[in-house]
Parts: sequence; structure tokens; C-alpha cells
Amino acid sequence: MAALNKNYINVSESYLFSDIAKRVNEFVKNNPDKKLIKMGIGDVTRPLVKEVVDALKTASEEMGDSATFRGYGPEQGYAFLRDKIAAYYAGYGVEISSDEIFVSDGAKSDVGNITDLFSNDNIIIIPDPVYPVYLDSNLMLGRNIKLIEGNERNEFMPVPYEGLKGDIIYLCSPNNPTGAVYDRARLEAWVKFALDSGAVILFDAAYECFIKDKSLPRSIYEIAGAKECAIEFCSLSKTAGFTGTRCGYTVIPKSLVRDGMSLNRMWLRRQTTKFNGVSYVVQKGAEAVFTIEGQKAVKENIEYYSGNAKLIADTLTELGIWFTGGINSPYIWLKCPDGMKSWEFFDKLLNEIAVVGTPGSGFGKCGEGYFRLTAFNTKENTAEAMRRLVGLLK
Amino acid sequence: MAALNKNYINVSESYLFSDIAKRVNEFVKNNPDKKLIKMGIGDVTRPLVKEVVDALKTASEEMGDSATFRGYGPEQGYAFLRDKIAAYYAGYGVEISSDEIFVSDGAKSDVGNITDLFSNDNIIIIPDPVYPVYLDSNLMLGRNIKLIEGNERNEFMPVPYEGLKGDIIYLCSPNNPTGAVYDRARLEAWVKFALDSGAVILFDAAYECFIKDKSLPRSIYEIAGAKECAIEFCSLSKTAGFTGTRCGYTVIPKSLVRDGMSLNRMWLRRQTTKFNGVSYVVQKGAEAVFTIEGQKAVKENIEYYSGNAKLIADTLTELGIWFTGGINSPYIWLKCPDGMKSWEFFDKLLNEIAVVGTPGSGFGKCGEGYFRLTAFNTKENTAEAMRRLVGLLK
Repeated sequence: MAALNKNYINVSESYLFSDIAKRVNEFVKNNPDKKLIKMGIGDVTRPLVKEVVDALKTASEEMGDSATFRGYGPEQGYAFLRDKIAAYYAGYGVEISSDEIFVSDGAKSDVGNITDLFSNDNIIIIPDPVYPVYLDSNLMLGRNIKLIEGNERNEFMPVPYEGLKGDIIYLCSPNNPTGAVYDRARLEAWVKFALDSGAVILFDAAYECFIKDKSLPRSIYEIAGAKECAIEFCSLSKTAGFTGTRCGYTVIPKSLVRDGMSLNRMWLRRQTTKFNGVSYVVQKGAEAVFTIEGQKAVKENIEYYSGNAKLIADTLTELGIWFTGGINSPYIWLKCPDGMKSWEFFDKLLNEIAVVGTPGSGFGKCGEGYFRLTAFNTKENTAEAMRRLVGLLK
Repeated sequence: MAALNKNYINVSESYLFSDIAKRVNEFVKNNPDKKLIKMGIGDVTRPLVKEVVDALKTASEEMGDSATFRGYGPEQGYAFLRDKIAAYYAGYGVEISSDEIFVSDGAKSDVGNITDLFSNDNIIIIPDPVYPVYLDSNLMLGRNIKLIEGNERNEFMPVPYEGLKGDIIYLCSPNNPTGAVYDRARLEAWVKFALDSGAVILFDAAYECFIKDKSLPRSIYEIAGAKECAIEFCSLSKTAGFTGTRCGYTVIPKSLVRDGMSLNRMWLRRQTTKFNGVSYVVQKGAEAVFTIEGQKAVKENIEYYSGNAKLIADTLTELGIWFTGGINSPYIWLKCPDGMKSWEFFDKLLNEIAVVGTPGSGFGKCGEGYFRLTAFNTKENTAEAMRRLVGLLK
């Protein structure tokens, strides 16, 4: 009799987005004339840039010609793309060699699958509130999870405290959902903790492209010692609008070794066994992101979203509402006014000004009383939503 | 201190293909004038058909236009593709509903990741010789593996025997590397074994498109009861030359339940947590494979490879060499003449007629003394290689 993985029973399905949809549909049915503005979107909305589209089309044509057709590619990704990613890191002063880079179909796959490399005998440190994949992928293995509290005092960027014990640490910066960006001192504290204890940091940098402030690290490897204790995940989803095109990359330094085992070699073994590389067509599209013209074009889109984020941040400042994010991040995490709970504030925004956001309580216990707005709608809609918010709360 | 997954120590790297490359390079260096013919290729060589290329290009353009841009898609795959796959199954009499189909970036990923659904307390039955992923993905978890012997007597299609115990069974038909295709009676024996014991069959049908003989099952679901005990993996890699384009699908019937848990629900949970769907562009390319024109075009390529396989099979028959495969499969698995060992025969073919194949011993202990030839070279090269083989062995 096949024995199933019983840990799945403990991974409850999240009804956050279906609950939101239900309330929104109800509102729309009862208010057919009101223009709804969705500020809860966690997905990009601007199309792929021309450079990427052209590369995708050219690669598609190559695949149709026997002289240029490509079959199985390297599981780790083509060198043409890994070299460009290494150069991208070098562009802001981080030295990564291209055999430390693994191209994947997106950060979510790698963040989820990385658990394969570790035994079940680890304490997993995960900040709360949090992107659900860290928690769920470890619950699925029945691992020992230690949630650490994000709150107003630590600006939703918890750091190691006296007596904290843990072996694997998930960090996301700029954070989803809070938009908070770890500064150098806080990251140094985590790297020190990991080096002292032998822990490994799993650093999710999927939103790094939104960091404008040059004093803030875009990569964990800007911190001395990180190459001995950290794996970094990144993605073209937000950098270049690849949420539906699917391409990301994971960095595992060759100097990351535990118990005499190289995590770089282990991941290569994992990927050659359980993965067959990313579509050649998609990798050519991704390569175009890292050309000079490609970078110029994708940065215009990032600027566009950043403009929206700034508008939201400025509005909240004007209203005297406490928030994190919005400056070096597409997410804004605000404290619900008048001590409202997350869903209370959700209903108020929906019913009184037809604006939809995401209740913070959906991201963990510590998210209660907070609320997420995102910068991925149009400039016009974002501006209109902010006018309505000022009208409601001022 | 992070504890690593020590099972990785037991997964030895295969040097099969690098060993082959080494000997081939040596030969080419010493024999620069001789025309080498590679018959060991496990990868398609013919380009994508026009219907697919056009669909990829159109989808790429859609992604560049805000009116038709797509962000995150459903993790399970777009309905437009799942519906077409369901219709493809219906086309040969197998009823699968589209919510039992999961689109993936290739069968290798799903075959590797499916281990997530099972606990470590299972006996895993794997035929030898075998596609290495089944073995390695279970070694990585330290699971209890029971290899069962493929040999000349069972035509490399082992069936359950008196006293066999096991909970998870890997079957691959048409088989890689042997080309053997399980007939209905043998599959019925496995389904009966699984239903009687509660085991789950993991059925790899990646080469089903090569089955011409209508009496041979292309899907495990052609066997009564299989929907209560089997998961099926399939791929467009060989069906439509997608080895570098990356798209496959996995079928998990809703009636596959163990211990009150639905494996379909569990896999959906796994994929929504650790996967973010296949590129929209690739899914549109895959959709084109299942149109009437697409099917016609990809079948021409399959016919081309099948013609090569037949030529190899006919030659071996003429030479009186025992083999499996070659008729409903792109692989031909032959018994090395004169009691030669796999590598002996490899060296003989390479050095005497400049033909490269794959030593059977590279696929498991039971592969010793056997040899794999494949149908993926050109018609002209295949014919030339067979002329040389006849000259050598007749």
C-alpha cells in the first residue's frame, strides 16, 4: 500500500485571494456603475519590451530551422545567459562566476525545491508576515518551523535576537508583502548569525530591481561573508515582466560548504536529475533583458511602477499613516487607520471608495491590522485611487 | 548548523555520456578522415514544425502588447492546452477530464518531483535497466528500492512475480533504453498487482507517439482499473521535438485516492506551492501540436524517425541479432554479438566502423551485454551506419 506524505494535511489551502474575489464580485454585482480600482495586484501589467519580444521571435524561428534547432540544453542554463547574469551582478560590484548561477523557470520553483538539499533535522527560521511558499514548502516536509515576528518596532525587518536558534533562514528583501528593504547593518547581523552558527540563509531577491537607494544591498553577496552562508534567488518576473514568460536564476557560491559537501554541486546534481533546463526560446528572451538596450527598456517599466509606488507612499505620508515599502519596492504595507483589523479596512475601502487591496492578515498572524497596496496598476488608476483615499480618510 | 541531505552522497554521478565522449574524441583525433555516425543520440534532431513556430511567434507578439499580455497563468496550465490534451486522449479512446491534467515544463520535472507526494516508508519497484531519473530521485530520499530484472526471457518487460512486495512502481513504455513496449496482458498484470496491494504505478509514456500497433496500449488508462492506481507522465519532447522547448503533462485521475487523500488534490497543492506554470508562449506552441494541422506535421517527423528505427530493426533481423524495440519505439536494444560485453561492443563499433552507440551497462546491471541504438540521426546516416554494420558482422 502506497504511503502518502501526510504532512500535506497540515498545509491548509489559502483562501485569501478567493475570499477577496468573492467580496469583490458581490460588490460589483450590487454596484454595477462604480469603477473598481484593483490595488491588490501582485502581478506585472505592462507588456514585454520590444527587445525581448524580438528575441523570443528570432529564437522561435531558429527552432524551426534544422541548421539552428536546439534539443536538450544544459540543465543549469545556457552559458550565453549565465554569463550575462554574472555581468549584471558585476555591474553593481558583486562577483559571481557563471558556474555559480543556475537558470530556472522562476524563483518560486527554486525557492520551493531548495528544501531537497537539506535534511529534515533543521530548525527553519521564517519571518512573519511572509510570502507563503517558504512556510508551505517546509510544512510539506513536516519540518520544525520557527516564526519570528515582524512588527512596527523592527519595521517588519526582524533581526537575530539573543538566544535565537535556527539552521535555515528565509529572508526576502525587498519584502513581499511588506515592501521593507533590509539595510546593510541588518543583513550583516544575519550573515554574522549564519557564519557563527553554520546556518544557511535563503535570500529571495526577486524585487531587487526596485532598489534605487545605493546604500541598500540588492544582493546578499554585497555583505562580506555571505558567499560562505547564503543562497540567493532572483527572477525576471518583476525585473522584466516575465511572470507569464517564466525565467529566474539561483546563485549558489562554490564556497558554500557544510559537512564537507558543496551545495553548488548538490544543486547541480538535483537539477540534472529532476529538471531539464528552461526553454531555449525563453532563455534567448531573458538574454535580451541583459543587453544595454534591454536594460534601458525594462528600466522604463520599473520606473513606471516605482512612480506609482511613490504616489502611494506620498499619499500615506500626507495622511499620516504608518507604512513600510513604497520607495525601493512595488509594495506598500500600511497600518490600518483607527485600529481597524485587516478585513475591516478591506471592506471599508471596497464599499466606500471601490478600491481593492490585500488584507495583511492573509500573510501571517503578524500581518493582522495591516494592509498591502501594490504599484502594478496604471498611473491613472493609481492616482484616482489615491484621490479617493484622501477623500475618505482626510 | 544546517544539516544537509546526506542521501546525495549515495547518488553517484553517471559518467556514461562523458566516458563515451572521451572515447569518441580520442577516436576522432586519431582518425580525422573517417566519417563518424552517432547512433547513441537520445535527443530529437528535426526542427519544430511550422505550426508550432508560428504559434510561438504569435504568442511572443501577444506578450509585447498590453491588450494581450499575460502575467501569471494557472499553475496547472491554461485550459486551452489542457482541453486539447484531453481531446488527444479521447482521440484514442481514453477519457481523461482536463482537471486531471497538469501541464509542466517536461516529464523529467514531474517524474522527479512526484516523490514529494509519498512518504519515505515505501518500497519502490524499479525495473533494471532503466532511465536513471527513477532511481536517482529515490536515492536522493534514501528510499527503499527494489530493482526487478529485465532480461531476454521477459523481453525486458518484467511483470510481478509471486511474493513481490512494493508500494510504488515505475514503468516506462515504450521503454527507455530498451524500446520494449508493454502489451495489454503485462500491463493488466501490473494494474492487478497495484489494485490488490494498494500500490501506485508511475507510468512514463514519453514515447507513446511511436506506438503504431493498435493492440499495444499508448496509455496506462487503456487498462481497466488504472485510474484507481496509476499516474501517467507524458511529454511533447519526442512527440513534437520539444526537448529544447520544454513542455510535458502529467495525468492524475481524481479517482486515485489512498488513505482518504486525493493524489490529484495533493499534486495541485504541490504545484501551486512549488511551481508557477509553464511559459504562456510555450503553452501556445504546445497547443498548436494538438491542432489537426499540427498533428499532421508532427506525425511526419515521427514517421521519419520510425523509418530509421525500422531500418535498424530490419538490419538486426537480417544479421540474426536478438533485439527489443525498433518497431513501436525510436530505441533499439540489441544483444551484443559473440557474448561481447557492452563496452567491448562499443569499442568495436567505434574503432572498426566509426559508429557510436550507447553501452547497455550504463543503464543498470541488467544492461550488461546489451547495446542501445537510436533512430534520431538522419535517414542517410542511419542507412550508411547499417551498411557498415552488415559489412562488419555478416
